[in-house]
Amino acid sequence: MFEFDINAKNGLARAAVFHTPHGFLNTPVFAPVGTQATVKSVTPAQLSELGASLVLSNTYHLYLRPGDELIAKLGGLHEFMSWPHPILTDSGGYQVFSLSKTRKIDSEGVTFKSHIDGSTHRFTPEKSIQIQENLGADIIMAFDECADPNDPVYIRTAMQRTHVWAERSLNAHTRQDQALFGIVQGGVDLELRVESADFISSLPFPGVAIGGLSVGETKDDMLKVLDTINSHLPVNKPRYLMGVGTPEDLINGIARGIDIFDCVLPTRLARHHSAFSKHGRLNMMNATFASDTRPLDDDCQCYTCLTFTRAYIRHLVAAKEMLAGTLLSIHNLHTLVELVKEIREMIFNGVFEENIPKLLDIWKYNANKAISE
Amino acid sequence: MFEFDINAKNGLARAAVFHTPHGFLNTPVFAPVGTQATVKSVTPAQLSELGASLVLSNTYHLYLRPGDELIAKLGGLHEFMSWPHPILTDSGGYQVFSLSKTRKIDSEGVTFKSHIDGSTHRFTPEKSIQIQENLGADIIMAFDECADPNDPVYIRTAMQRTHVWAERSLNAHTRQDQALFGIVQGGVDLELRVESADFISSLPFPGVAIGGLSVGETKDDMLKVLDTINSHLPVNKPRYLMGVGTPEDLINGIARGIDIFDCVLPTRLARHHSAFSKHGRLNMMNATFASDTRPLDDDCQCYTCLTFTRAYIRHLVAAKEMLAGTLLSIHNLHTLVELVKEIREMIFNGVFEENIPKLLDIWKYNANKAISE
Repeated sequence: MFEFDINAKNGLARAAVFHTPHGFLNTPVFAPVGTQATVKSVTPAQLSELGASLVLSNTYHLYLRPGDELIAKLGGLHEFMSWPHPILTDSGGYQVFSLSKTRKIDSEGVTFKSHIDGSTHRFTPEKSIQIQENLGADIIMAFDECADPNDPVYIRTAMQRTHVWAERSLNAHTRQDQALFGIVQGGVDLELRVESADFISSLPFPGVAIGGLSVGETKDDMLKVLDTINSHLPVNKPRYLMGVGTPEDLINGIARGIDIFDCVLPTRLARHHSAFSKHGRLNMMNATFASDTRPLDDDCQCYTCLTFTRAYIRHLVAAKEMLAGTLLSIHNLHTLVELVKEIREMIFNGVFEENIPKLLDIWKYNANKAISE
Repeated sequence: MFEFDINAKNGLARAAVFHTPHGFLNTPVFAPVGTQATVKSVTPAQLSELGASLVLSNTYHLYLRPGDELIAKLGGLHEFMSWPHPILTDSGGYQVFSLSKTRKIDSEGVTFKSHIDGSTHRFTPEKSIQIQENLGADIIMAFDECADPNDPVYIRTAMQRTHVWAERSLNAHTRQDQALFGIVQGGVDLELRVESADFISSLPFPGVAIGGLSVGETKDDMLKVLDTINSHLPVNKPRYLMGVGTPEDLINGIARGIDIFDCVLPTRLARHHSAFSKHGRLNMMNATFASDTRPLDDDCQCYTCLTFTRAYIRHLVAAKEMLAGTLLSIHNLHTLVELVKEIREMIFNGVFEENIPKLLDIWKYNANKAISE
């Protein structure tokens, strides 16, 4: 279980197979986000059809609603959401810090108020692992503290706490059918990041996650962190860059040795009527698409592009029809899943490195701009 | 084209095949409603999979947005919405009377204001037919006036106007690949209904619709109208009961010789978290379903019931996830499509009439109650 077989390398990029109890993952892999045990507006059948293999779900949300104990009683998250393929859950740490209104952190854990009903709850490393064991995902995360990367003093405290909590998470974990990943923190401080990478790598985790990026720092800072810690991570374990990213981020991340990605961007953009495309991001509210008979992206093979015109999708957006969100989600998710798959082929063929400038050029106009643009 | 082959009868009920340019329809048939060229929250692939064969779309809505001329330019409604099977459009008459704020009716037509932007428009029989020819549905409707059934004086005026407009619609219609249906009006006044049925039946329409029901009258009044006009309708042409209905309405309508039905109820109920079931209508917000591992309906074979538990759907509803509307729409639409298909089999086997009490007993708790119930 949890073997990680690297089949090809190209520069720092790796093409591998990660074995889980619910089937193997071809990496690099992009995971759609199903926050509340559903990838918003997309059925599991549509997810499979668009090529998704790994889905991420959120410990914080599922703990609060419907409750991890209920999900355990119903047979676990795979059965609950009818996704028989690999699932990854985060530790809840990031959501506690980003979503709950009042929170109080101490060395033992975090006390916070539910964003749903204001009720008080407490997460500790042990509690987070217990919840994740109830959910039963294939890949689970150590409990960490994700601090503001622009607060250089506090970031050290948060990192040190994350290290202690990593060991406590390891000790608390009992299920053999789950791969528990440690999380590297340290903000954009390269020395702290090296220290954290060395520490987390020294622990017997079957995989390593890189947290605290894509949370407000610059793209340059993110890439510098990845460049710096690369040689401090175990070579033969999967590396997961949490909460990233845009098409560019995927290209840049894989080029720096990342194997697993997740991001809400494709489905969030879809609900705000934006589509990824090789010609730049399309705002489907735009009247220029009203009589455009082309698909969203010329040679995309997703259900949306094989079936519908831009004119129809623009009509759905203008008429505020729910189907718009579904069709755009299918397209945006397929775009990222397919991009990563294409890069994997390039790694096997030894041509990814030489194609990076071309890939970045194609996808550069799809960056994470403000949704109102 | 437009042959209507009656293959079996049982009492007044008929099992037939209606031939259209986009394939044949097995009747009785229930048509999901795609008001704005989309059955809300359901893809055409899902519609096909759940067994739908005919989809209704709205002339009034598509004329206003995105415009019938644009749809014609884009290849017609079938191509626009990617539904290669039969489509029916209404005449826009009902929506003008129910949706637009100010309207002025005269013997020539209706002037009304758009519910979207308040702009002024005018429908005449000729205009309605022109729009429907632009849309290009297989089955289209004569322009009619749908009056309040509780205004016995005015209902005669509206009926007489509908008759004049029926002839004008016939004269205006040029496309040979569309079946234009006349519409019987007359409110709940049985004498007027007979007069209207006789008049509309005397015209060379390939099919007859019964309008102005399910608009506020009692169920008893509706059934009395159907009982009374039956012998005044042409035997060998399809009969379409507009805007109906509930499972009970379908059973009662087929028993009175109706062949085609449409209704927004299954998708509207779905968006208000209600599911049809043989045990009565389920309000999926209800906490009693939180740990219920059964499907929505025990032996339903729709994607939703084959894949998900009530507990999961209840979670989606509580978490306000879009997928709830999609999964409930699939189930509710499949339920009606399947009920009608089951009745068709019974007609072939000569056992529908004897099973009517049993069918009504099974489905009686799914009536069109207020959504808040």
